[in-house]
Parts: sequence; C-alpha cells; structure tokens
Amino acid sequence: MRLNCDLGESFGAWQMGLDQDVMPHIDQANIACGFHGGDPLVIQNTLALAKQHQVMVGAHPSYPDLQGFGRRSMQCSANEIKAFLHYQIAAIAGMAATQGMKIHYIKPHGALYNDMMKKPSVLMAIMQAVASYHQPLVLMIQATPMFKQHQQQAKKLGLTLWAEAFADRCYDDEGYLLSREHKGALHCKEKMLAQVQQLKTQGTVTTVTGKTLVLAADSLCVHGDNMAAVAAIKEIKHLLTS
Amino acid sequence: MRLNCDLGESFGAWQMGLDQDVMPHIDQANIACGFHGGDPLVIQNTLALAKQHQVMVGAHPSYPDLQGFGRRSMQCSANEIKAFLHYQIAAIAGMAATQGMKIHYIKPHGALYNDMMKKPSVLMAIMQAVASYHQPLVLMIQATPMFKQHQQQAKKLGLTLWAEAFADRCYDDEGYLLSREHKGALHCKEKMLAQVQQLKTQGTVTTVTGKTLVLAADSLCVHGDNMAAVAAIKEIKHLLTS
Amino acid sequence: MRLNCDLGESFGAWQMGLDQDVMPHIDQANIACGFHGGDPLVIQNTLALAKQHQVMVGAHPSYPDLQGFGRRSMQCSANEIKAFLHYQIAAIAGMAATQGMKIHYIKPHGALYNDMMKKPSVLMAIMQAVASYHQPLVLMIQATPMFKQHQQQAKKLGLTLWAEAFADRCYDDEGYLLSREHKGALHCKEKMLAQVQQLKTQGTVTTVTGKTLVLAADSLCVHGDNMAAVAAIKEIKHLLTS
Amino acid sequence: MRLNCDLGESFGAWQMGLDQDVMPHIDQANIACGFHGGDPLVIQNTLALAKQHQVMVGAHPSYPDLQGFGRRSMQCSANEIKAFLHYQIAAIAGMAATQGMKIHYIKPHGALYNDMMKKPSVLMAIMQAVASYHQPLVLMIQATPMFKQHQQQAKKLGLTLWAEAFADRCYDDEGYLLSREHKGALHCKEKMLAQVQQLKTQGTVTTVTGKTLVLAADSLCVHGDNMAAVAAIKEIKHLLTS
Repeated sequence: MRLNCDLGESFGAWQMGLDQDVMPHIDQANIACGFHGGDPLVIQNTLALAKQHQVMVGAHPSYPDLQGFGRRSMQCSANEIKAFLHYQIAAIAGMAATQGMKIHYIKPHGALYNDMMKKPSVLMAIMQAVASYHQPLVLMIQATPMFKQHQQQAKKLGLTLWAEAFADRCYDDEGYLLSREHKGALHCKEKMLAQVQQLKTQGTVTTVTGKTLVLAADSLCVHGDNMAAVAAIKEIKHLLTS
Repeated sequence: MRLNCDLGESFGAWQMGLDQDVMPHIDQANIACGFHGGDPLVIQNTLALAKQHQVMVGAHPSYPDLQGFGRRSMQCSANEIKAFLHYQIAAIAGMAATQGMKIHYIKPHGALYNDMMKKPSVLMAIMQAVASYHQPLVLMIQATPMFKQHQQQAKKLGLTLWAEAFADRCYDDEGYLLSREHKGALHCKEKMLAQVQQLKTQGTVTTVTGKTLVLAADSLCVHGDNMAAVAAIKEIKHLLTS
Repeated sequence: MRLNCDLGESFGAWQMGLDQDVMPHIDQANIACGFHGGDPLVIQNTLALAKQHQVMVGAHPSYPDLQGFGRRSMQCSANEIKAFLHYQIAAIAGMAATQGMKIHYIKPHGALYNDMMKKPSVLMAIMQAVASYHQPLVLMIQATPMFKQHQQQAKKLGLTLWAEAFADRCYDDEGYLLSREHKGALHCKEKMLAQVQQLKTQGTVTTVTGKTLVLAADSLCVHGDNMAAVAAIKEIKHLLTS
Repeated sequence: MRLNCDLGESFGAWQMGLDQDVMPHIDQANIACGFHGGDPLVIQNTLALAKQHQVMVGAHPSYPDLQGFGRRSMQCSANEIKAFLHYQIAAIAGMAATQGMKIHYIKPHGALYNDMMKKPSVLMAIMQAVASYHQPLVLMIQATPMFKQHQQQAKKLGLTLWAEAFADRCYDDEGYLLSREHKGALHCKEKMLAQVQQLKTQGTVTTVTGKTLVLAADSLCVHGDNMAAVAAIKEIKHLLTS
C-alpha cells in the first residue's frame, strides 16, 4: 500500500499544510489544481518538491469554490464536471510536463469526492472525464464493498481505478467512514496504527460494531496538517515498510 | 497575412463576442484561458468550434483579473507571470489535446499584452515562459520597428515570434498605436481596408502624420464584437485572399 | 401589484439585461450584490438609475458563485447563509445610503431562492438573516399556498413577507411553478397577459390541469433580458394600471 | 498614540494572524473587507471579537485581488477605486451595525495603501470616497513630512485624517519607510522599543542616517502574525501606557 496525501493547498499569502515535512515520507502527492487551493506558483513549487523527493503526483481537482475550500457540494451538470476536471487536470499536467514530470492519477477533492462516492451520476461524470482525457490516467476512489462494481463500470470506459483506505477514520458496517459527528469517528494513534497493520496483513478493517470487513486498498490516505500528523505519517510509513 | 481574433471570452452566464459568426472567417483563434474570461465549458466549446472550422488555435492568457477583464495592469513578479502563463497555456493545451488539437502560439491579453510591449522585464518574463513550456510554441507580439530586436532576444531562448498588425487602428510615427483617446485613433472602414491593402502589398503603414513606416506582419488582428465588425472581417478576408 | 425585476447583473466587461430600458417601467428593482453578478461600479450605476426613475430598490443576494451565476445549489450552513446575506445586504444598503436611497426588501437569487422555497432550513436561515439585520427589511418570497404558514413563521421573528407571483410561468396544482423542462412551462404572451389579468382581478391562477388556485401576490416578477421581454413589461404595466 | 493592527485576514479554510491573541492588546482593529482577505463569516467573527474587547474598528479595504492578497498594484480608475471603497466600507459597516457597533475609520490595505502614499490621484480618489460615504469616517494614512499638506487637502473635502507611524520599520531621511530590500529596514526589538519611546516622548524618529525627523502620529501600526509579534505588542503597549 502506498501513502497518499493532499498537498499544494496553500493559496497566495495563505499557507496550508506542512508540505516540506510531509513530502519526504509519502508515495503519492495529490496536488490541488487552483479551484479549492493552489495558485500557479504554489502548484509549480509543489511539483518541484515532489520531483525532488521522487514522489508520484496526481491531480486533486475540486468544485470551483475557493471560499468554501471545495467542501461544499455544488449542483453541477455532468458536462460542467467533465469540463472542470479536464481544465484542472490539463493545467497541472502541462505544468508537470514542463518540469519533466507526469501526472499519474486523479483523486477528486472534498465535496466532489464525497458526491462521487454517494451519487452514481457524479461518479459516472468523473469516470468519463478521466477516461476521455488525452493521456492515460488512473482514478483513485474510496475502497468500499462496492469497489468491484465500480471497477466493472470503469473497465467499460477503459479506465483503471485505485482504491484508497483511511488510516485514522473509523468505518461503519457498510464500509463507509463514520461521520465526523459521531464519537469515535477519528482513531487515536494506537487504533490508527492497528488499523493500518490489519489493512496491511489481512486486507480487512474492524468496523465500529466490531465486524470484520474485507477492504482491498492500493493506497492509504494520510494527512499533514500539523507536526503530530507528520509524526504519525512516519510511524505508518515505518509500519508499512517493515 | 493570417487573420487572428480574440474568442472564447464569455464567462458563465455572460456572453461576449459573436464567436459563431467570426470563426468561419479567421485563421487563428486566440482563446481566453479562464483568467480574464472563458470558463472550462466555454473553452471546451470554443475549441470545438475552432476544430469544426479548422482554425489554428492559440492561448490568450491574462493577468488574473476577471472583474477587470484583464485590462488593468497588475504589478506581478517575473516568477508570477511565468507561473500564470504556464498554468493557462497548460489548461488550454490539455483541453485542446483531448479534442485532438494542439495549441500553436501564445498571444497575451489586454494589460499583459500592453505591459509586454512597454516593459522589457514583462516581455522577458513572457518570452521565458513560452520558451520553457514543454511543447514548442510561438509567441505573437505587436509588429513595431523594434521587432527585429525582439526577434534577436527571442532567438537566444530558442523562441519564434510572430508579429501582428492592426487593421483598424491608426499608427503613430514610432510604429505604436495611437491612443484611443486621440481623435482618429480608430479608422473608418475605408481607411481600415486601405491600411490592410497597404500592409499586404507594400508591407508598410501610413502614420498619423503621413509618414510611411515599414511594418512586416505575420498576422492581422480583427475584432468580432458586433455584426458590423463581423462584416468588416469578411471584407478584409476577401481583400487578403483576392 | 407591483412589478419587480432582477437588475444590475452585469459584471465588469460583461453586459446582462436591458436595465436602461426596463427601469422606467417597473416598481421594484432587485439589485445584484456582487456574489452572482454586479461589481461595485455596476451596483453604483444601477442604484443611480433606480433613483432617477424613483424605483424602490431591494437587495438580490446569492450564493457566492460568479461562474455559475448563482444558479447552482451549494450546501452551505445556516451560519454561512446568514453571513453571506448580511455582507451583501450591507454592501448595497451602504452604497444606496451614499446616494440618499434606502433598501426596502430582500429577494434571494437563483439557487438560493429555489432552496429557500424547498428547504425549510434555508428559509429559516434567510428569515433570521433578514430579521436580524440592523435595519427593517421585508423578505420577498414566492406566493404559494404555504404563504400563510410562512407568514406565521416570519411574524415570530418580527419579519414582514411580501409574496411574488410570476407572469409568464405556468403553475402546477400545488401552486408551484411547472419545471421549465415541461412543455407549456412558459406562457405565450396571450396566456401571460391573461394570467396577470386573473391575478389582478380575482387573485387566482389557473393551473396546468385547469384548476383555479387562490394566490395573493404583492408583486409580480418580470424579466428584461431582451426587447421582446421589455415590450411585455410595458403591456403588463398597462394592464395593471388601467 | 493608539495601537492599530490588521485583523480578520483569514479566508475560508485558510487562517492568518493570531487575532485572538492580538485583540486584547490593541486599540484599533483594521478589519479586512473581503477583497484581499476576510470572508463574510470571518468578518462577522472578527467584529464580535473586537466588540468583546471594546476595540475600535476600522475598514481595511483593498484592491480586488485575493490571490495576491492585495499586495499587487492594480491600475484602476478613480471611479473604480471609489466604488471599491464604498462597497467594502458599506459591507463591513452594515455588518458592524448589526452587532451594535460602528466603523470609525478607513485604512487602505497593501498596494492600495502604498499607491495612496505615492500617487496623488489615488490619494484623492480615496479621500473623495471616504468623504462622500454617507457616514462620517476618518481616513488613516501614513505619517510623513507631507502630512500637513494632506490634511489641507482633506479639509477641503470635510475629511479628518489620522496619521500612523510604524514601530518596527526604519525611516529614511524623507520620512518614508526604508524598503524591505535594504539591510536594516526592520528593527530588532530593542530598536523598535526605542523608536516607540522616542515617538511617544519627543514626536520624532531617528532616520537611517541618524537625522531626527518630526513625525506626529495618532496611531502606531503593529503586527500580529506570530507569537513573537504578539509579545512585542504587549511590550509596546506597556511602554505607551506607563
């Protein structure tokens, strides 16, 4: 399992995330494309940082909502979603190529990611957008019990999917993340490391009610917002590579 | 001489320009990239329209100023300008490639264009941006008596320049456009056609004081804001191809 | 019944609506506040035009979505909606006061208006926002069979409501507008004038199935997008005042 | 001398400044109005924080440039500047009034502030904007040897000016701030406190070349970006009130 993290989410004078501290420890950088964070200079610098640490880069496109940081669901048509994705993917792919790099995958951000996992029409629009882009790209979505079905859908479009699991989030019995409003939605460090260990060795998670759920993940999403989070990334990395 | 026109400058619900009427009559479409006009759907549709009429496409990047339509000079660093250009060029180049097309040239928009012609540091930043992009692209600038010097500068960067002249604007003795505040800055149709004819046959323009000035132009900038402008394009086209 | 119309929806270089032609014929101008249209200069000019024609002005606030012209529903919290409204109301109220005018009412725009009529939580957030503003303001909502209930809700907050009906839209049996996707959703001019006449003399509308529905309206929403629409406004005005 | 500080410059998910730590120690809060920072919720919360600590509030308007944090000079017309200011002042004044507060003064932000001090046309546009606002407001500008002339200009418009000095910046012999590019442009803590002491007791500053310059200041600008800056504010406050 690779480690992926959202990076390049600063904007102008506003800093976000400890990109410099996180980059050395991850495998995949999901880079903001300007619609929820990441202006052209930030994108350029984040790509350079990924190159320096030989980290695989992906585009992290969003609804067009800087003020809401892409966290507010927006009722967009399939055509709008496709055009938004092509624009953002293209912007970052061309900037990456100018630094001798290429974009390998797409991971939608925030509300667009959530809508993708909840609304089949949004998932389909995103799949079509990624499949129709002029370069081959993988789409990263959430690992759920529906993943095989999603793969079949993707296959018809000639699209490859990667599944990502979450290290620090508690799962419900359906394989979805427990809402942050529930107590216990976020694991303490011990539970987080236990969940990573279980995902690595058995390919399962233990849900909030104690059930065991099969969850095959290609990548593990981690966060780099503060020094404690960065320390946790290092421990997860150590656990995965040992 | 080719005919170039700024297109794709609508934004969301706001329409601008008679793109459908203009596209059949021009050779080069300068397509807005989202910073002064042109949202992802508009860009997509404008590219499709250019493809349908087999019109060469160029990127028309701007300062980031939607409210000011890119017409307000902004004090940006060379690094900012380069990153702005790479982002906008990349966005439109990737969207073009997804439709099986490619971007051939860059023509800066509005205040960025004016600053490029007035401030050597801006011109240099733009030349470096276009030259360093990962695909070969031509930079289109204004045809002035300085053009040979600009070409030498560009050559050092491995960059090709195209020079554009203006059909409907009166030139001063230095080869620059008479400010719109001056009476006679804009030619009537007769003078416009005479200027095009002179550019075509003699490679010169007659300035506001009656001097003859050599002005070699690869392309001629026309406008498509209203039906009278579209009619003028047709006449210019006829004059150039007859 | 007064006539209200959305105005001041141009933005920067982009024009929208025939404000100059419409203003002389309406009673209430719903003025965009900058979140879906209307930059500071446009707002200033629209207020001046309303003053010249002695037209009552209202604020026309929106979700923050210029690219989508406020037509895309956005999942915002009640606190966000209240803050958005206070900001937009304040901006236009202070600019109006600087011209010696005052804002009389609030009419939400686009998706915010639709959400207000469909989602009780959005309606409540809007009512609280308008009621808590430091100056007395009326909230204009859609006239539906629910209007009395809405009034009771508003009364508890010390808020006055105005109900608006639509001249050119066909109503369903529940008193809502037939979706634009249905055939017959938009009336021809004859039906439109008949509907206005019926609203004026009987306070009812005839629904798509032929039922008669009581619909008390304080104001009638008209549109000024093109010259045909402006001509229709004049006919409606004549009908209402004769 | 009062202490003033720029606050409310967070935007959406991006935090900036230690507003909670700074507010208890200052006299005047310059609150961002949404054009360079400060969304409606941030403005609302910053106003509430100022109210809690009984801090006088002023509007801190900017050029419309979120990405550049208002630090890039933009070539705007006098009419644009006036409309920008009225919009921003109105937005924050109405939100303040809704919390039972009022705005006392205007201090332009970033590049708009710099342009105001360098370009007479910008200063005049800003003076006219503040003077023509429908409520009496003071304009805060930089204390320089030109201040008396600026006051005469303002007086003709019925406008009051306040002069602000800088605690931590070195002055040149003309009374302007030494550019940040020069060594010694920023004072160490000892020099900063000495400068404040001298401003307080003698109404003068010692310039970079050792000259003594009369500089009457109504307010002293301090910064609250980090904990060291907050600690410095406390020391300055203690020095001024002892």
